Amino acid sequence: MSTTLRPAPGLERLSLNTATTKGWTLAEAVAGCVDAGIPGIGLWRDRVAETGLSKASRLVRDAGLTVTSLCRGGFFTAPGREDDNRRAVDEAAALGTDTLVLVCGGLPEGSRDLPAARAAVARGIAELAPYAQANGVRLAVEPLHPMFCADRAVVSTLGQAIDLAEAAGHDTGVVVDTYHVWWDPELERQIARAGAAGLIRSFQVCDWLLPLPADALLGRGHVGDGHIDIPRIARLVTEAGFDGWTEVEIFNQEIWDTPGEETLRTVVERHLRHLDRIGQPCS
Amino acid sequence: MSTTLRPAPGLERLSLNTATTKGWTLAEAVAGCVDAGIPGIGLWRDRVAETGLSKASRLVRDAGLTVTSLCRGGFFTAPGREDDNRRAVDEAAALGTDTLVLVCGGLPEGSRDLPAARAAVARGIAELAPYAQANGVRLAVEPLHPMFCADRAVVSTLGQAIDLAEAAGHDTGVVVDTYHVWWDPELERQIARAGAAGLIRSFQVCDWLLPLPADALLGRGHVGDGHIDIPRIARLVTEAGFDGWTEVEIFNQEIWDTPGEETLRTVVERHLRHLDRIGQPCS
Repeated sequence: MSTTLRPAPGLERLSLNTATTKGWTLAEAVAGCVDAGIPGIGLWRDRVAETGLSKASRLVRDAGLTVTSLCRGGFFTAPGREDDNRRAVDEAAALGTDTLVLVCGGLPEGSRDLPAARAAVARGIAELAPYAQANGVRLAVEPLHPMFCADRAVVSTLGQAIDLAEAAGHDTGVVVDTYHVWWDPELERQIARAGAAGLIRSFQVCDWLLPLPADALLGRGHVGDGHIDIPRIARLVTEAGFDGWTEVEIFNQEIWDTPGEETLRTVVERHLRHLDRIGQPCS
Repeated sequence: MSTTLRPAPGLERLSLNTATTKGWTLAEAVAGCVDAGIPGIGLWRDRVAETGLSKASRLVRDAGLTVTSLCRGGFFTAPGREDDNRRAVDEAAALGTDTLVLVCGGLPEGSRDLPAARAAVARGIAELAPYAQANGVRLAVEPLHPMFCADRAVVSTLGQAIDLAEAAGHDTGVVVDTYHVWWDPELERQIARAGAAGLIRSFQVCDWLLPLPADALLGRGHVGDGHIDIPRIARLVTEAGFDGWTEVEIFNQEIWDTPGEETLRTVVERHLRHLDRIGQPCS
């Protein structure tokens, strides 16, 4: 019988995505969250796999953490992903999270046919969604920054992700990740649209650093270190009716080279400084 | 008295943007175009400045080249650009081109207020447009890839550029550059919209290479070397009624390190292979 972790004051809706503390095993990340009073954790499948699914599930449950998402299924533009995507759904269910994040895949090897790739993604999501729903899991379509369109995700805007989620049905929703969507002239309108339709499943935060590093995947920073007005976007999702978690997901080699405890101190400090008040439900 | 250069067969609408042959002076670029039978040239202001405006103007006129655009004005989010932008209009007029490309500027130093930066851009364009029109020059708003939103242009989509152009009036239009817009789920619709409104002033081409280089500005390649279906986008602009130039603008250190003659041979070869038929007016 496990109890829910009592969060530190102001951290009631804070979640650590394990990608942020890449050097830590799952057990270390869980212990780190408990020590820091962070009540939520977002899991990556590789970290779960190395721990073992049932042990991972037990670890987070025994610690009283809420699993806020599992990353990730998707890559629908690559052949033969159906089985793996169903396994991702099963894993999400076993871990006790209802949110499976989808990174949908870039152009197939050697192809320049973007409309065809996008159609393949739409088919892939629609095919997976009923299986997910039947297992108590909701797919969350993540638009990735357009600079990843060729190699990681042909889903490039929140509006496009909402279209895909609505077409797939079966409780499919979307992810709002500040890094990927902050530049979008349609952002305010699309967040309101997603909120009104009850489609926001996950709110992930990190900042945009310049210059971009050689590996553009790794140009993310702690909240407040870059160019994104993250509190504004947090307000937009809150005003759109989202009262779920704020998940901190940062890919950055320098942060990965920092001891996890120190990273978590920074995560907590930035959350309290920039996001604490915003995330609260109106009362 | 100058005559118009007779283009090589199939190159009737090809233009070389001088940024592609960065190692060449303007005189060398002009001679290179003449030798290759490329009838159009897009000029950068730095190259014009080092040559001198009247000499630059004479050079291209005497060679019978058409100046297809001048790059660039803009950077409205930085203080005190009004005078320089008016000079850019004057230079365009002196060079005999009616198209001044605008790169609109990123977030002001230390600011995260994207809506304010976008409002400043809208004001800046609207203020410059009457002056441009009075001098026979049309402003062309260039949306830049969203990865440049923080540091170079808060105008991130073609739809947004069209909105700005329509708001500014005075014959303001837009640039369609394959590198910047290829990922956009709205691309087909927005190109049709820009074409129907008669707003496409410039069509620039280059390809998207992976991996992105350390300086993300330089990840552009010759047509056909990357992930963009450039012929498809060329068809879209042609179908939208655009019958102007196809301007090749490539930022790439490796290409800059290649002798200009060789670069032009590749430019011509790729144009004939991928774009010749598409660019022709229906007949």
